[in-house]
Amino acid sequence: MRSPLILLISAPSGAGKTTVADGMIAATPSLRRVVTCTTRPPRAGEVDGRDYHFLEVAEFAARVERDEFLEHATVYGKSYGTLKRSVVALLEEGQDVLLNIDVQGAARVREEARRDPLLDRALVTVFLTPPTLGELERRLRGRGSDSEEVIRRRLEAARSEAARWREFDYLLVSATREQDLARMQAIFTAETLRRDRNDLHLGE
Amino acid sequence: MRSPLILLISAPSGAGKTTVADGMIAATPSLRRVVTCTTRPPRAGEVDGRDYHFLEVAEFAARVERDEFLEHATVYGKSYGTLKRSVVALLEEGQDVLLNIDVQGAARVREEARRDPLLDRALVTVFLTPPTLGELERRLRGRGSDSEEVIRRRLEAARSEAARWREFDYLLVSATREQDLARMQAIFTAETLRRDRNDLHLGE
Repeated sequence: MRSPLILLISAPSGAGKTTVADGMIAATPSLRRVVTCTTRPPRAGEVDGRDYHFLEVAEFAARVERDEFLEHATVYGKSYGTLKRSVVALLEEGQDVLLNIDVQGAARVREEARRDPLLDRALVTVFLTPPTLGELERRLRGRGSDSEEVIRRRLEAARSEAARWREFDYLLVSATREQDLARMQAIFTAETLRRDRNDLHLGE
Repeated sequence: MRSPLILLISAPSGAGKTTVADGMIAATPSLRRVVTCTTRPPRAGEVDGRDYHFLEVAEFAARVERDEFLEHATVYGKSYGTLKRSVVALLEEGQDVLLNIDVQGAARVREEARRDPLLDRALVTVFLTPPTLGELERRLRGRGSDSEEVIRRRLEAARSEAARWREFDYLLVSATREQDLARMQAIFTAETLRRDRNDLHLGE
């Protein structure tokens, strides 16, 4: 019997954490995404409870008030949040949980986890970063669609986010997609083998 | 810059740790074996300083007296030991060090490491065990060459060694050779990515 873990992947914006997160979900049968809550309206094809829990603004605010979120944030006027009980429910089923969260959200998760032994024991945090700020800028510009102003603002944000790498358990300096995924898988596998997540019954 | 690590692999006798250790050395360019000391005479083809440091009994005893060994043991009247300074010299060159040591020796290494911050920071301990004692017995018998008495004695020793799995950082319940090696490599890779073994300079 192994106790489940929360793999929290964070990164400065533009570092490519969603690619690695998607790769981990595809490659790891025991690993599940949490369905998060949002106040933005569903897009075509999105299903409530599968893609997101779509909440009214007042309902979201009430849940913030009741401290039900592990982390939440507002981006361009729309709120997004991860319910504590969604994570706990998966862990209690023995599932491992993937959280793909920005640096500010990761700090909140870490804080919440400290107050809950189940979460604290499960939590493993990984910081993915490009090797240099120059490389991060190249990736941000590579998208091609953003204005100079947007790029400069994102680069500034990324710079201060990247400075927070010491808050994480693991540091993954990104290389190719394949290498990033292989190393993230190594972290996951190693964490499943930690003695304090396992029990051994040798029998006779 | 990454600080080097000591990968200590231990197991009950007969669990196959030497196979995994050999595989790790073959697969990992940064990982080095330590040349250990012994009082047994060289065999044909063995070279002093490459295969072992061959020591006179009095010389070995003097080094024990001066507390120069990280761990040492006597097996069938011959002494074997790992010099602290051999391990430290490799770490100071930035090499990772592989130690393939029995359960008693592993406990001594852990104790010594607690007294030396360089060793303590570097040390990662893995316990390799067959899934059941029945499987361990099957493996011991599979060698075919030992008497019933020897097998019983080794099984008894292995049973009490296996009970000490909680002393290690990682628990690796052995499956196939390939799987054991892949999981040991995952542990090694993950440990090289731990934030406290790394430094990040993003530059501009």
